[in-house]
Amino acid sequence: MGLLEICKNAKAAKYEVQKLMAEKKNKALIAVADRLIKEAEYIKSANDKDYENGVKNGMHKGMLDRLKLDDKRIEAMAEGLRVVASLEDPIGQEIEHFERPNGLFIKKVRVPLGVIGIIYESRPNVTADAFSLTFKSGNAAILKGGSDAINSNIAITKVIRDALCDEGICADAVQLIEDTDRSVTTQFMKMNDYVDVLIPRGSAGLIKAVVDNSTIPVIETGTGNCHIYVDKDADFEKAIPIIINAKTQRIGVCNAAESLVVHEAVKDEFLPLFAKAMKEHNVEIRSDAEAKSVLTDSKDATEEDFGKEFLDYIISVKTVKSVDEAIDHINRYNTGHSESIITENKEAAQKFLDMVDAACVYVNASTRFTDGFEFGFGAEIGISTQKLHARGPMGLKELTSYKYEILGEGQIRG
Amino acid sequence: MGLLEICKNAKAAKYEVQKLMAEKKNKALIAVADRLIKEAEYIKSANDKDYENGVKNGMHKGMLDRLKLDDKRIEAMAEGLRVVASLEDPIGQEIEHFERPNGLFIKKVRVPLGVIGIIYESRPNVTADAFSLTFKSGNAAILKGGSDAINSNIAITKVIRDALCDEGICADAVQLIEDTDRSVTTQFMKMNDYVDVLIPRGSAGLIKAVVDNSTIPVIETGTGNCHIYVDKDADFEKAIPIIINAKTQRIGVCNAAESLVVHEAVKDEFLPLFAKAMKEHNVEIRSDAEAKSVLTDSKDATEEDFGKEFLDYIISVKTVKSVDEAIDHINRYNTGHSESIITENKEAAQKFLDMVDAACVYVNASTRFTDGFEFGFGAEIGISTQKLHARGPMGLKELTSYKYEILGEGQIRG
Repeated sequence: MGLLEICKNAKAAKYEVQKLMAEKKNKALIAVADRLIKEAEYIKSANDKDYENGVKNGMHKGMLDRLKLDDKRIEAMAEGLRVVASLEDPIGQEIEHFERPNGLFIKKVRVPLGVIGIIYESRPNVTADAFSLTFKSGNAAILKGGSDAINSNIAITKVIRDALCDEGICADAVQLIEDTDRSVTTQFMKMNDYVDVLIPRGSAGLIKAVVDNSTIPVIETGTGNCHIYVDKDADFEKAIPIIINAKTQRIGVCNAAESLVVHEAVKDEFLPLFAKAMKEHNVEIRSDAEAKSVLTDSKDATEEDFGKEFLDYIISVKTVKSVDEAIDHINRYNTGHSESIITENKEAAQKFLDMVDAACVYVNASTRFTDGFEFGFGAEIGISTQKLHARGPMGLKELTSYKYEILGEGQIRG
Repeated sequence: MGLLEICKNAKAAKYEVQKLMAEKKNKALIAVADRLIKEAEYIKSANDKDYENGVKNGMHKGMLDRLKLDDKRIEAMAEGLRVVASLEDPIGQEIEHFERPNGLFIKKVRVPLGVIGIIYESRPNVTADAFSLTFKSGNAAILKGGSDAINSNIAITKVIRDALCDEGICADAVQLIEDTDRSVTTQFMKMNDYVDVLIPRGSAGLIKAVVDNSTIPVIETGTGNCHIYVDKDADFEKAIPIIINAKTQRIGVCNAAESLVVHEAVKDEFLPLFAKAMKEHNVEIRSDAEAKSVLTDSKDATEEDFGKEFLDYIISVKTVKSVDEAIDHINRYNTGHSESIITENKEAAQKFLDMVDAACVYVNASTRFTDGFEFGFGAEIGISTQKLHARGPMGLKELTSYKYEILGEGQIRG
């Protein structure tokens, strides 16, 4: 099917999906979950083709692993759908209401965004995931997955659409762009008349390409150059486990820490403890000149290192003279994701909270908590690093807009 | 000053502006208002240059009128600043808070967007207006006005900056791009590292150019192809004054009505009343074939007419068989701005409210109420016609974002 036809179908479908009551959506989500399990063999055989192509094309081992769908992963996709079915439906909620002196009654209600485009890379489970969140929030979705997972995505989308049909729901609530030609993706990003929002999910390169080329409003997600600042009044017994957790619990994620900022007053005492912990976890340290006086074995940090999301067993170290300098350094190099201060000093903590420009600012906790599940949203479509619309973890509510409903009795403007 | 330097200054200034307490901002806004009055001669003489250039370049009379600054208009600018000073400061407000089972305390607080770029056309009063709203909401602003008003804008910006300096506030809270070369505007739209949001204000052409070229998130404002739907159960005594008001009270504004949609069951009775009212207000009617059987004197409406924001004494008429067809027609041709149904039928009204895809949906009231002042916001930077971030009238709150502040006691993720 051509791109224009897909877009037109989605625009028609959004009016159907926005009308669906929570109960009907939940029943459909569970039906889709059941169907994914039932069709596991079909999905796995499609996935096998992608996997074989991946092997043939010399795909990196980590990527191959992310591509692979087995029974356990299909069960996890189904479970994700069931969780979304259990979440509260945000659509139709009244956000506020007020009456004007002329008698106009104005109600602000939550409505779907409309048509959401999602552009993502090779993990095929995103297909089910993105469907569940956009559907539950009353939106129609157009998915553009990576060409590496095209057979898996086609199979998963077919299973979802078949299940929707059986539930008497418009299958175009979710459509996949099957054409893997890059020019189609570029055209997709210009479909302003049909698509309300684009959400890229994947590497920094993918996100930048979407931001640079889309004329449709984009929600930028993902890149996280996160810092842990160890203040002069830090409790080291909190600092060390937090750094280990933020740096090493999962190295490839956007809320992992990439840099330690340390107050010079504690560097002599703290950095040896830090170095020991990093060594135990096989993390390479790249230090500035001041830190190097203590961390004599470490590599030199370059200017570039401070701006880098390593996503690897590497951490940079920057020494500062004050919390103000720490804030300046972080605001200069961060990506607006997650930042943490370790301190027992309330004044320093408050200044850090107030002045650091990021979606999530922590006091004495790991940056790894920036996550829709950890925040209690039940699910997430990604972490927004922009300030427009939504910031930080994006759950169902963040996939909605609002409208004003105004009730009058013949009022005209004077 | 070069564009990059302006952007860097703005990024530095945003950290200063976000810290300012409401009282200090309000005092500064009043000082700016006083200074504008005091410097009226200076501003008028700069404006004279623009006006003379306009005359020389054959500028349209309506445009020349919008360009002109006299004492009354300068007083109105100052009054606008005083009104904004009196409004509640949204910054620092707690939106919500919640505690997680692991003891993390999460607070969602309102913060400025950061650096807001505003690209606008020839009305120089927008300069003071845009400054007041962005400043009160804790943002730094970079303004790019039309070249036709460049001397006026330079003078107004200088007066504002001088007043800020005297108040001990960083003058870079507001900067004007003085270079009127188009390529500078295009570069400005790619300054993602410095500018958080772009808001275009002006014609449909300007807005489209910004949407098409900007890589910075844009809030689309303005274009309004607004409809009045007269249902079969309409009270004509409400319908006629509402249509007159929506169409003719101010023809050049985005919340003016451009099209009448009428139920066929009432066309014979209603359209003659409508035609009489339009004739009295010198409004040209362009009808579809069904309406033409009654409005025999009217012009034929073309397909193009239904998609047009006339901004003129012209109205199109479309006949429909049901409220559903009215909704379909509106959703096909509207710009997501403001739509109104005239009916005494609650079911039809509810369906219209639920299904029409627009920022503001009215029952028995004029579309002219879509306005920040009419909504009680005290002021507005524009009317958003997109669904991301803000929809409808945008006041101070719509110029903010939020951040999560998370307080822990050493929590790490398991």
